[in-house]
Amino acid sequence: MIRTSVRASSRVSSRLLVGKSVTVPVTQGIANLFVSGVANNKKLSSFHSGTRFYSDKPQPKLTVENYPNVKRLDSFKKLGKQDLDYFQTVLSQQEILEANENEDLAFYNEDWMRKYRGQSKLVLRPKTTEQVSKILKYCNDQNLAVVPQGGNTGLVGGSVPVFDEIVLSLTQLNKIREFDDVSGILKCDAGVILEAADMYLAERGYIFPMDLGAKGSCHVGGIVATNAGGLRLLRYGSLHGTVLGLEVVLPNGEIVNSMNALRKDNTGYDLKQLFIGSEGTIGVVTGVSILCPTRPNAFNVSFLGVESYEAVQKVFVQAKKELGEILSAFEFMDLKSQNLTKVHLADMDHPLSDDHPFYILIETSGSKKDHDDAKLEAFLENAMEEGLVLDGVVAQDETELKNLWQWREMIPESSQAGGGVYKYDVSLPLKDLYSLVDAANAKLEESGLSSIEDESKPVISAVGYGHVGDGNLHLNVAVRRYTKEVEKCLEPFVYEFVSSKNGSISAEHGLGFQKKNYIGYSKSDQEIKMIKQLKNLYDPNSILNPYKYV
Amino acid sequence: MIRTSVRASSRVSSRLLVGKSVTVPVTQGIANLFVSGVANNKKLSSFHSGTRFYSDKPQPKLTVENYPNVKRLDSFKKLGKQDLDYFQTVLSQQEILEANENEDLAFYNEDWMRKYRGQSKLVLRPKTTEQVSKILKYCNDQNLAVVPQGGNTGLVGGSVPVFDEIVLSLTQLNKIREFDDVSGILKCDAGVILEAADMYLAERGYIFPMDLGAKGSCHVGGIVATNAGGLRLLRYGSLHGTVLGLEVVLPNGEIVNSMNALRKDNTGYDLKQLFIGSEGTIGVVTGVSILCPTRPNAFNVSFLGVESYEAVQKVFVQAKKELGEILSAFEFMDLKSQNLTKVHLADMDHPLSDDHPFYILIETSGSKKDHDDAKLEAFLENAMEEGLVLDGVVAQDETELKNLWQWREMIPESSQAGGGVYKYDVSLPLKDLYSLVDAANAKLEESGLSSIEDESKPVISAVGYGHVGDGNLHLNVAVRRYTKEVEKCLEPFVYEFVSSKNGSISAEHGLGFQKKNYIGYSKSDQEIKMIKQLKNLYDPNSILNPYKYV
Repeated sequence: MIRTSVRASSRVSSRLLVGKSVTVPVTQGIANLFVSGVANNKKLSSFHSGTRFYSDKPQPKLTVENYPNVKRLDSFKKLGKQDLDYFQTVLSQQEILEANENEDLAFYNEDWMRKYRGQSKLVLRPKTTEQVSKILKYCNDQNLAVVPQGGNTGLVGGSVPVFDEIVLSLTQLNKIREFDDVSGILKCDAGVILEAADMYLAERGYIFPMDLGAKGSCHVGGIVATNAGGLRLLRYGSLHGTVLGLEVVLPNGEIVNSMNALRKDNTGYDLKQLFIGSEGTIGVVTGVSILCPTRPNAFNVSFLGVESYEAVQKVFVQAKKELGEILSAFEFMDLKSQNLTKVHLADMDHPLSDDHPFYILIETSGSKKDHDDAKLEAFLENAMEEGLVLDGVVAQDETELKNLWQWREMIPESSQAGGGVYKYDVSLPLKDLYSLVDAANAKLEESGLSSIEDESKPVISAVGYGHVGDGNLHLNVAVRRYTKEVEKCLEPFVYEFVSSKNGSISAEHGLGFQKKNYIGYSKSDQEIKMIKQLKNLYDPNSILNPYKYV
Repeated sequence: MIRTSVRASSRVSSRLLVGKSVTVPVTQGIANLFVSGVANNKKLSSFHSGTRFYSDKPQPKLTVENYPNVKRLDSFKKLGKQDLDYFQTVLSQQEILEANENEDLAFYNEDWMRKYRGQSKLVLRPKTTEQVSKILKYCNDQNLAVVPQGGNTGLVGGSVPVFDEIVLSLTQLNKIREFDDVSGILKCDAGVILEAADMYLAERGYIFPMDLGAKGSCHVGGIVATNAGGLRLLRYGSLHGTVLGLEVVLPNGEIVNSMNALRKDNTGYDLKQLFIGSEGTIGVVTGVSILCPTRPNAFNVSFLGVESYEAVQKVFVQAKKELGEILSAFEFMDLKSQNLTKVHLADMDHPLSDDHPFYILIETSGSKKDHDDAKLEAFLENAMEEGLVLDGVVAQDETELKNLWQWREMIPESSQAGGGVYKYDVSLPLKDLYSLVDAANAKLEESGLSSIEDESKPVISAVGYGHVGDGNLHLNVAVRRYTKEVEKCLEPFVYEFVSSKNGSISAEHGLGFQKKNYIGYSKSDQEIKMIKQLKNLYDPNSILNPYKYV
């Protein structure tokens, strides 16, 4: 599979030791703290692209076997010869993939996590928006169910069929349409790979206003359809602010085009917003117009140790104030997550020699390196003098910068290295962000399921880390083996806890198939009613991405 | 009227001379260019708040007299005694204003431009969301038309009644609900005045992520309902990105509450987006949750002369690159606009002694003054060495900073000082931004309607200025008197021109009553159909803000 090679690049080699970083014990003061940065952010970006690891898992069971309660809707027609005949009038033979004895269409039927597997017999890969329109109109008229699919890197089973839905792959709709190098507005097809878009922009001095681990595979249309958050949200805000226009094909084949939209346009409801984060349930995004900022040319990364989650919050407020406009990432990690990562990255030295209850990774990016260096240095000096930061290092070159990021980015892989991992991606009010990890550990211990040493226990530990700037916590429950008891202990406990704090049960991954039934933990009955109204308005036959979302 | 006093504060007094600014002729090089800034941005903000001037106009004719083709909808019931009885069960006597011989409710019936005047006999001023809900449910059940009204500072007649609609004023729903000084999330009632919200935030080291001239009167709910753009869009992006949650009452009285939303929440369609910019046609915003950035503590302003609109664009690209994260405003003005302003501000010296075809005002705001100064100085040095900038000054203190802004902010008033002004607020692709001004002047001259000297001609000149960063042009046609010929010459010419360049006929002012019939110049039939679908979905009886929008 193509994606294995793309996604297998994340292994940390021994070349990447944090050898040269300057560790500054608090007793030593900040005098030796040497601040340095990295100008080549192209390489930084590609570094970010390799943290997935799931594809080594064995082929999953069919989704229908795992979820026998989910039934195929009788209203959907089964694919017939005459349907294929019609699609052949719209698409060339190369644009139609049929399942046969040699081809099970596994790439299109299986999700990236290898948790879900559908049974589609037909993949359509149109090259134009008009082809998408004709396909959807026909499917709507004929009651044929359709799953729109981008790079298929989603984490909630939203991009693969459950039964025999037709896969509508946007892979071949992949042209950059236009770039305005004065305004920074990029217009491109939905199927353009995020990394390709960002590299195109890099050559012109601009940057794509979001970034995420799967950038080498995921599509620009896919990130819009799922409202992906990713690594630059703290700096550039959400796609609801940066996407200026969309081209969307509705289930009935009608094309809604706002690709000419400018930065300001107050004439009518902002229709495109409905499709950002709609996960392919009310329309298929075929084109994206997005505002891209000027590419920063200086990056700094610092890795700090602090004594409590309260200190994490205080350092965050201080960083917003002193680093201001150049702060581009503020990530926190707990000691447990770093202990797991130390085991996994056994041939690397941890950036900080002593243990600390919490760690912080701060990234700055700006237009002038010596200014950024001075701001970071002053900020760290103050934070250490105030006793907020106990220890810290600052990357001196690009290799060190990458290495520091590794201690954040390798947590997911490290969490599952002991056997497996239950992953939760939630949002919580900042003050409550870490309380979920404590609560989960307490619950697992009370239940007698958890022990770091005792290998007879299924759970090793629950660890927490995430994007403080976005209020986004990743709770990973590292396990030695998956058991029904652990699942029962965690669910719906985690969702109930998040709901009790007015959090979101899906900060950035979406609902898809996995969380369809849990939307009530994040949305009121009134909101769910309105969501269903809209689904019914645009897709009355429910042909788009059925069995998911709502 | 209260608003006269608030809005009359913009007159420039002779105290505000740009005496101390250092003008640097290009021959003199950049060595003397002294860059300075201002730390007290509270005063800066209040400076921004006083550029309105319309309230001196006489009371307008009734809208129904000016627009006899617009007919009252028969489906709406006329207000009766039993309706008042009901409202008295919901609101106290102080919250109900009835028209009588001493009170024509002019403040609520007339718009700020004094172009429109309705005939409402009843103003309801609820203090709670529950009261809003009861009022709307009753009005919906009884087919009573309602106009939601915030600060009533809109420019398109969207916030005042056309006939006898009940005015639902949000003025008394005006509490700050909550502020989280770690995340920067502010939650407040819709009726909080923008300036009050910003001052509340200033005391806590934060800033409201948008700003506009009417900040002393307009409501937070109003700017959300109209998706106001304003002065900080270049830096902080649109409200679609910064608003995290809303509390909205639907026409049937149902309350949709997403006030607990966090920065990331991917569970369902982003319903709140529909109400941002809906101009009170599908729901009444009663609460707003918004993400506020840390307040910058250093401001710089520079005023530059360049030789062409092409040079304006080049300087913009250069500013984005070199000023990067601290660029907070990039405004341009043509020579004609400055000539009118020189007449109007006759007791002030223009910042630049020689005439230039175009002028640019650049504002930076950042977290560290000496860094900002150095960046601005280096940027100006390069721009002058390359011959892009012919002349320029940089404010040395807060007074000068305000004075430089005056030459941009007083253009509207100066444009109408000769008798009157036709104002157009449009968005165009950046490369075409100024072409509309040239085209309008050419058309007016061809038609023999325009002359700067000849006072027998109705038109003095068309002038252009605006927010380059947002692609937002203000076209002001300064006239000696309003005539049908001028109107016929300008409309639909301006809208057709904008449409031919794929621009927007309303960049930030909205549709309201004024532009309702012109939406087709900016939106496709498909989009208009979808907008009407949504209006019908949420407001099937059309009780909310009728005769406007769509």
